[in-house]
Amino acid sequence: MVLPAMAISASRVHGQIGSPRREYGERSPFEKSRRYFSSSATPGTGSSRTPLQDLYGTITPSSLHFERHHAGVPQIDPDRHELLLHGLVDQPLAFTVKDLLRFSAVSRIHFIECAGNSGREQEGNPGPDPQKSHGLLSCSEWTGVPLKRLLEEAGLKPGARWVVAEGADACRMARSLPLEKALDDVIVAYGQNGEAVRPEQGYPLRLVVPGWEGNINIKWLSRLHVVDQPAMTREEAATYTDLMPSGKARQFTFVMESKSVITRPAGDQQLSGPGEHEITGLAWSGKGRIARVEVSTNGGRDWKDAFLNEPALSKALTRFSLQWQWDGKEAVLQSRSTDETGYVQPTREQLIAVRGTRPGPDGFDHYNGIKAWLVRTDGRVSHA
Amino acid sequence: MVLPAMAISASRVHGQIGSPRREYGERSPFEKSRRYFSSSATPGTGSSRTPLQDLYGTITPSSLHFERHHAGVPQIDPDRHELLLHGLVDQPLAFTVKDLLRFSAVSRIHFIECAGNSGREQEGNPGPDPQKSHGLLSCSEWTGVPLKRLLEEAGLKPGARWVVAEGADACRMARSLPLEKALDDVIVAYGQNGEAVRPEQGYPLRLVVPGWEGNINIKWLSRLHVVDQPAMTREEAATYTDLMPSGKARQFTFVMESKSVITRPAGDQQLSGPGEHEITGLAWSGKGRIARVEVSTNGGRDWKDAFLNEPALSKALTRFSLQWQWDGKEAVLQSRSTDETGYVQPTREQLIAVRGTRPGPDGFDHYNGIKAWLVRTDGRVSHA
Repeated sequence: MVLPAMAISASRVHGQIGSPRREYGERSPFEKSRRYFSSSATPGTGSSRTPLQDLYGTITPSSLHFERHHAGVPQIDPDRHELLLHGLVDQPLAFTVKDLLRFSAVSRIHFIECAGNSGREQEGNPGPDPQKSHGLLSCSEWTGVPLKRLLEEAGLKPGARWVVAEGADACRMARSLPLEKALDDVIVAYGQNGEAVRPEQGYPLRLVVPGWEGNINIKWLSRLHVVDQPAMTREEAATYTDLMPSGKARQFTFVMESKSVITRPAGDQQLSGPGEHEITGLAWSGKGRIARVEVSTNGGRDWKDAFLNEPALSKALTRFSLQWQWDGKEAVLQSRSTDETGYVQPTREQLIAVRGTRPGPDGFDHYNGIKAWLVRTDGRVSHA
Repeated sequence: MVLPAMAISASRVHGQIGSPRREYGERSPFEKSRRYFSSSATPGTGSSRTPLQDLYGTITPSSLHFERHHAGVPQIDPDRHELLLHGLVDQPLAFTVKDLLRFSAVSRIHFIECAGNSGREQEGNPGPDPQKSHGLLSCSEWTGVPLKRLLEEAGLKPGARWVVAEGADACRMARSLPLEKALDDVIVAYGQNGEAVRPEQGYPLRLVVPGWEGNINIKWLSRLHVVDQPAMTREEAATYTDLMPSGKARQFTFVMESKSVITRPAGDQQLSGPGEHEITGLAWSGKGRIARVEVSTNGGRDWKDAFLNEPALSKALTRFSLQWQWDGKEAVLQSRSTDETGYVQPTREQLIAVRGTRPGPDGFDHYNGIKAWLVRTDGRVSHA
């Protein structure tokens, strides 16, 4: 696997004094990993994708967290930003960011995944590499105030059932959140991976709705309206619904069900040759912890339990791995996740038997089928 | 605590389309937090400190991870870097970074703390804010290969007792690691917070020695020499020893014992006024998990259990917090950590009774006394 050392002098030592200290560091100039996006005539609308194949562990570097905006990234002065909480409450309140810092904070590691992530797989137009197929997915340590605490501060009136969250971007992105979830684990976040939430992620305030589709994790959060019924905003009426073969659409399908993807070896990669390789990837579930990931190297005939990196946190990316002795023959690699509720990631065939292949108003949402990669005899990897 | 909303129109919405997507994101231009360091005639030697008072949660943004170099930051091409493993082994081996990626990886969240962190407190010359007093401390998700696995690959010969790790920087920083620790939880890390280890942290390879003093977490790792006794390098003979009142020095005091510090409210901060405030800070132990943090707001007369943010991981920073109703009177804030072994963070008085106030060859190492902040009646906070 590794060459014997030729001589003790093999290790290179750099004879020059290196660079001095810096106030704010940057990655090595040898590192080129970047978010992927295609050019657009309306650059304020669109998405960029996280380079999952280049990442280690479970935390996504904030600079590489996927993006999805509908009116670009507003530049907000945090000292001039307010969060309004009103509607069916005893006392409407307005919070500055400094006000929120006076409440007891929580920090939680959670993934955020766009509802449309990996949707092209359903259609039969699969992504050629992990970034293009599954890159609308990232994971951060989020810090902020439990939404429950702010609702308690305002006091809920009888009849309160939903909370409409609205962003301060030009399109006023808004979604309706059931009160039950709002009182559970939702966070009004000002921190991401130790520092302030990044501009593309909602600076200075983002609603983090653990395990639920990315779109409801409202960025540039400026308003929480407590109401008795959902607002039927564009994003929950016209889009972010799942068209079924009957022609009817599923609505308010918030939870991202368990999914996994192998990130190495994966599409557009090259194995150096037969021998021992690590198969590694990510698994997650909007319903809780990942309990098990199985890996097949022969197209789904046999499955082996992968190693799960600890801690495997609830509603967070979990890194799995399996050592694989590649014999140099063609191989099909797949992963299958099971979450703590017992839910098992389905095959594409199982999914389209229920949901068909007709796209909804904004494509295929909530697709979570098993992804396969083909390793060719020359070591090239592509979508199977 | 918060002002009632004057009107529903209080929330500002940005009417302009915002910025487009970016390949690699940056923080908001409103965020100014930076590493602190004083100017130096030899800029390649020195340290920079993490702005703990500005951070959220437990992960340190890689751009703000503290630095300590003795010959500057070398710029290393990872394709030309090798790690040599030799000495009392059956087969000397040389690994490229790509070789290491073929082994099964682990990801672990661990703090790294300089042995000298908060040392000036021992002398009676305390830091005026958390960055200056305790900022040689950071926490990252590290990914890499267990050192144990590489030692198994090479095969240990009888008589192997220590591993001398050496960096590729111009000073060839080197430290001796007991074999028992090398076979426990040490990682040869290539990943930090999801992406490649940052240049200041050892790009492309860093030895991560969980819970042990920063200096032994060798950066730009290029050589592992398996030997029968410690190498007595400059960093374990002349420095990184702890001078005792007897004139003798403690040597190989690797473990960073449990410590905590309140980061808000803390020195150089200003409370907006009496009322409810969050007291928050960080606790850690090189011996395992943090089991308990107590907070006193009256100079140590009474202590209350703080809330510990979950998960409180082993040898990782743990965030604690306590809601505090400030009555506007002068107050002294302190925190006291207890780790899972039952070890309780000592007072400065307890420490200097044993260790005195005479600095060792590179100052005061392994000082972990309780830190106090004084809140004045005008809301200004300073060292107590």
